[in-house]
Amino acid sequence: MKKLKIIKIGGNIIDNEDALHSFLKEFSKLKGSKILVHGGGKLATQLANKMNIEVKMSNGRRITDVATLDIITMVYAGKISKTIVAKLQAQQCNTVGFSGADGNTIVSVKRPVKEVDFGYVGDVIRVNSETTDVLLHNNITPVFCAITHDANGQLLNTNADTIASELAIAFAATYKTELYYCFEKSGVLKNIDDNASVIENITTENYQILKDQGTIADGMLPKLDNCFHAIAHNVNKVCIGKPEMLFNSKLKFTTITAK
Amino acid sequence: MKKLKIIKIGGNIIDNEDALHSFLKEFSKLKGSKILVHGGGKLATQLANKMNIEVKMSNGRRITDVATLDIITMVYAGKISKTIVAKLQAQQCNTVGFSGADGNTIVSVKRPVKEVDFGYVGDVIRVNSETTDVLLHNNITPVFCAITHDANGQLLNTNADTIASELAIAFAATYKTELYYCFEKSGVLKNIDDNASVIENITTENYQILKDQGTIADGMLPKLDNCFHAIAHNVNKVCIGKPEMLFNSKLKFTTITAK
Repeated sequence: MKKLKIIKIGGNIIDNEDALHSFLKEFSKLKGSKILVHGGGKLATQLANKMNIEVKMSNGRRITDVATLDIITMVYAGKISKTIVAKLQAQQCNTVGFSGADGNTIVSVKRPVKEVDFGYVGDVIRVNSETTDVLLHNNITPVFCAITHDANGQLLNTNADTIASELAIAFAATYKTELYYCFEKSGVLKNIDDNASVIENITTENYQILKDQGTIADGMLPKLDNCFHAIAHNVNKVCIGKPEMLFNSKLKFTTITAK
Repeated sequence: MKKLKIIKIGGNIIDNEDALHSFLKEFSKLKGSKILVHGGGKLATQLANKMNIEVKMSNGRRITDVATLDIITMVYAGKISKTIVAKLQAQQCNTVGFSGADGNTIVSVKRPVKEVDFGYVGDVIRVNSETTDVLLHNNITPVFCAITHDANGQLLNTNADTIASELAIAFAATYKTELYYCFEKSGVLKNIDDNASVIENITTENYQILKDQGTIADGMLPKLDNCFHAIAHNVNKVCIGKPEMLFNSKLKFTTITAK
């Protein structure tokens, strides 16, 4: 079975021109099939401010009204996606920028209104990997932004971590799939203030203990839930750490495994 | 040889939600291989106004400074491209939105500064059709916006008519290629105020006469130069008219041929 790396980068890289440039330079050298998934960073909020459009959040999640969806589509699928594509082409890495609407790749459903109306936010219901797979077979690297569609013409704002894990799960049937979540810390930490306190392996068993102890809490919980969801659906390996973990074998990071 | 239709739509369709919707509905039903190229319409200017960014023009062409390039990338490759892609997916037409950077498809050079500095405007120097061709072979329709790149990481604003003709020329080697320029008039008109006065055929010979007479002038000249450029480079057929010319065989429009 061929290997496929699915790599998600977050705002800390996207918002820093130098960091993005050096990440993409290293990324382009990675051997084998790969997919890049990028978050949004601060650009969408900055554009909303310039346009005097109010940014509404609920529990750290963006509430996506029509104006906000337009901004996100412009920033994520336009500015950020095409900047990354052009930079990778300059490194001789052939890429195509995707939203979930392209190739009908990621179909989602508008989140039902419960306590909060999140607006045009999509929860993934189906991944059609055929178009992406055609590109991978031709040595072309798809670059995904955090937008999906409902297959009825509506674009939807979707969590980038979820897009990465759902893509990894869809490709697990035909590739030995590895999922890498890159962020600003060295991994999941025992002590949040100590970057050296990386927990090198989290399994279903010690995850429960770490949660009970309160060692893993807050924003790390949905991220790890995404990781275990992927592991439970045949993704071979899930890692969390600094982007350097991809290029430097000596670096410590967190690996999530079933056992 | 298989046929390929390359269809360019302009601002008059993109700016009108109903017109765009019904065009895309008909477009999705067109049999055979096809590529859609879209212009920008008024959205980029509207966004510039909202952001208090000055719109500078020279001879009807947009001068593209850094802020304007960002706007164009957001509007053309983000909002317009993904809206079209999502709408076509809803009609079961599988599409992928492209800029010239995607697939390294359209490489251009920043226009040299002469009397006017147009800024980040690109003149096409090379089309690499491989990635697009892979999609066409898998019944996927590429949708191109009017952005190219210089293969060194720089995105460039590029005329949509030129993108359409350069794509048509690149594919003429492997497809029987037809190029359709859709705009608000029924074709090239003898009398600009009379939509019934369509010149049904323009050849190299009568083009010179029509120019000498002053029948063809102004904005129609660069459009026709693009058409004859395509014809001279083995494009099989070039047509100018309302989008309906594609779907209604009774409609009059202008066909450009070598003889």
